[in-house]
Amino acid sequence: MSNFTHDPTTRSWVAAAQAPGCDFTLQNLPYGVFSRKGAQERPRGGVAIGDQVVDLAQLAASGLLPEHARTACSVAGGETLNAFMGMGLAGWQPLRHALFRLLSADTDPATQAQVRDCLVPLVDAEMKMPAQVRNYTDFYTSLHHALNVGRVIRPEDPLTPNFQWLPIAYHGRASSLVLSGTPFRRPNGQSRPAAGQVPAFGPCRRLDFELEMGFFVGPGTALGEPIPLARARDHIFGVCLLNDWSARDHQFWEMDPLGPFLGKNFCTSISPWIVSMEALEPFRVPFERPEGDPRPLRYLDDTADRAAGSLDVQLEVLLQTRRHRERDLPGDNICATSFRHQYWTVAQMLTQHTVGGCNVQSGDLMGTGTISGPTPGEAGALVELSVGGTREVPLPGTGEVRHFLEDGDCVVFKGWCEKPGAARVGFGECRGEVLPSIDLDHA
Amino acid sequence: MSNFTHDPTTRSWVAAAQAPGCDFTLQNLPYGVFSRKGAQERPRGGVAIGDQVVDLAQLAASGLLPEHARTACSVAGGETLNAFMGMGLAGWQPLRHALFRLLSADTDPATQAQVRDCLVPLVDAEMKMPAQVRNYTDFYTSLHHALNVGRVIRPEDPLTPNFQWLPIAYHGRASSLVLSGTPFRRPNGQSRPAAGQVPAFGPCRRLDFELEMGFFVGPGTALGEPIPLARARDHIFGVCLLNDWSARDHQFWEMDPLGPFLGKNFCTSISPWIVSMEALEPFRVPFERPEGDPRPLRYLDDTADRAAGSLDVQLEVLLQTRRHRERDLPGDNICATSFRHQYWTVAQMLTQHTVGGCNVQSGDLMGTGTISGPTPGEAGALVELSVGGTREVPLPGTGEVRHFLEDGDCVVFKGWCEKPGAARVGFGECRGEVLPSIDLDHA
Repeated sequence: MSNFTHDPTTRSWVAAAQAPGCDFTLQNLPYGVFSRKGAQERPRGGVAIGDQVVDLAQLAASGLLPEHARTACSVAGGETLNAFMGMGLAGWQPLRHALFRLLSADTDPATQAQVRDCLVPLVDAEMKMPAQVRNYTDFYTSLHHALNVGRVIRPEDPLTPNFQWLPIAYHGRASSLVLSGTPFRRPNGQSRPAAGQVPAFGPCRRLDFELEMGFFVGPGTALGEPIPLARARDHIFGVCLLNDWSARDHQFWEMDPLGPFLGKNFCTSISPWIVSMEALEPFRVPFERPEGDPRPLRYLDDTADRAAGSLDVQLEVLLQTRRHRERDLPGDNICATSFRHQYWTVAQMLTQHTVGGCNVQSGDLMGTGTISGPTPGEAGALVELSVGGTREVPLPGTGEVRHFLEDGDCVVFKGWCEKPGAARVGFGECRGEVLPSIDLDHA
Repeated sequence: MSNFTHDPTTRSWVAAAQAPGCDFTLQNLPYGVFSRKGAQERPRGGVAIGDQVVDLAQLAASGLLPEHARTACSVAGGETLNAFMGMGLAGWQPLRHALFRLLSADTDPATQAQVRDCLVPLVDAEMKMPAQVRNYTDFYTSLHHALNVGRVIRPEDPLTPNFQWLPIAYHGRASSLVLSGTPFRRPNGQSRPAAGQVPAFGPCRRLDFELEMGFFVGPGTALGEPIPLARARDHIFGVCLLNDWSARDHQFWEMDPLGPFLGKNFCTSISPWIVSMEALEPFRVPFERPEGDPRPLRYLDDTADRAAGSLDVQLEVLLQTRRHRERDLPGDNICATSFRHQYWTVAQMLTQHTVGGCNVQSGDLMGTGTISGPTPGEAGALVELSVGGTREVPLPGTGEVRHFLEDGDCVVFKGWCEKPGAARVGFGECRGEVLPSIDLDHA
């Protein structure tokens, strides 16, 4: 799948794209929606490059693009990316290729000057939700997460027997998706009572994050039309970071028999930039399915998908308390792992979602479920890191400890791909802060 | 809450509104969205009366309405009812009152003639989805259903301990909601294997319906803003019939630990007409909570809501096989019950949904969960009627029996309110037919 947009030797004339650690290289070109801070103007699609955003609405009108790319750029310059997502590879590829050429250092100076007129500094851009998400689904596809949580809530039988046979998922709440940077209130709710007692009602005492990635659906389908695994990739637009905030005490009381509800639907955060599947191609690594595990049923076991492998996206979680901020500290790293450990691929998730006939719509969002690696420091949630709240999670920067999140805590996810012979491809960050609960004056 | 629109002695000049058994009386005035069959025209809001639909877009332009009602009517004449739902009582009440007056037999003949110009015969109307549903939630609020199903899948412990403390719910899939009359394909999926075996994959062998009602959210809320029980009614636009089609074999394999997913998301059907809460007011009956059951926690225990009582909506389920249709039979009645038996009210459901801060949006749909009454013939799903597939459900009209649904089976829900001293208020019907599964050629 390698092509010229993966060539790490091509540099951009946007100097910051070559800075060490820059997420938004020429080889990345992630999509988002923005408007200029303080300006009363229509949000529109943009592509991040170095420390700049390319205004796609303006670029579409510039006359710089060949026909197919111009059409796609005009669609991508809309107020949401839904329509662009719906164009599929026929829209995505021409625009990516054209942007790569226009932003590369080989481009003549006159063209560079015209493209420069379409740039907005990232610091001046206010990011918006990239799509109107009409349907949000959350999967549960990390074996290590399933085992870690299973040991806490079902020690006698931590892994349900379906885990190895299908990518488990549940429907999430679309209305409470927010963009990175949006704070949220600690939820109120009921918790499991002691035997014979009345359930407690009040602010969540076991507030948690879940480190996930999210992927957006490209072209939609009609009801009753499954997406075969061999075609799943054509329906996946790109990937972001996702924080599935969780109220564990509320969740573990309410979820039997129908699954999580209020324990999850008070807020879910996503990062503003969507990295295309094409930009991630160089970072495929072989699958890691444990020896002796069953081979998936045929509809989930496509040779090309297995050969394509997992995505080696490096992930880290920073926890920044009020005290960190008082000391101008970025927070402590409490988790570092990779998306490569996931038991099921995003293609398998989408195929499973539609195998019974469920239709998908452009801009639908699917979370991967918590991403936890095989070692204790790779656990993507506090309920795992603190072993159900029984062990302290140290924050060396301030000397504090946590079992679960406290008011004022800020959780920051970062994600990036790096390897020799490839340009870095980063996701930016997904950030959210816990505000105190509101007082409902309820017993 | 009684007002002049509940007066059963007021008749309509639309003669069919007084016909025995007519669902769409002057006291009902349910909302839907339609266009004329075969016409290339914009769908718009309408109100059913007798055998006619009032075209609200045309009525808004007629000059017959006072100002507040005209504004509301113009909004309700849009392509979906979302915006009208969002207006709240300030929009709903003036329009209901104005329609009642214009359609009543007291109206002068000249006005009647002008309103008659805005009527479209129901038989010429093609109904559309009444709202763009951005979020769909399904509750689980029938004690008898929970006990019936619980005895099948958890005989040792049929009722989970949270049932009496909160209206249990899970998020459903908005994309696969369809209007009554839309057929759907039997879903493919995995079923639980025998110990040590590989899961079976193929067409659902335990396809079921679930008799539910659905309610639409009126004015939305911001993230973090709970709706107190005392204000829940202001946020509920109206009620329809809902069939939560279920693939039991797929569902019972996949749902541990995160709840139903593919077992539900292949299709959910709703009836086209939405009956307002105001039209249902005369049919309140006292709650039926069993003696000795705990009193709800304070946020779910509002005196006014308890006093308002349950809604006594009569419900019935007809099963019509191919053989019934060959013989021009309407099908056999396999369930007759009432919504009055539900353990939690719609107001309690909405308050529970938002108590943790989850926001709602105008046009959100919430299912009540399967409605089953206390006796065996009042069970709202085949898994209950056939006791987990162990007993035959007889269809006397053709001499057939069913355990679960077969291809070609058509399930029809009907709902209505009737009592002495009140005009009948009906819901019409919610209908769906099972088509054969597609052949995925998968092992």
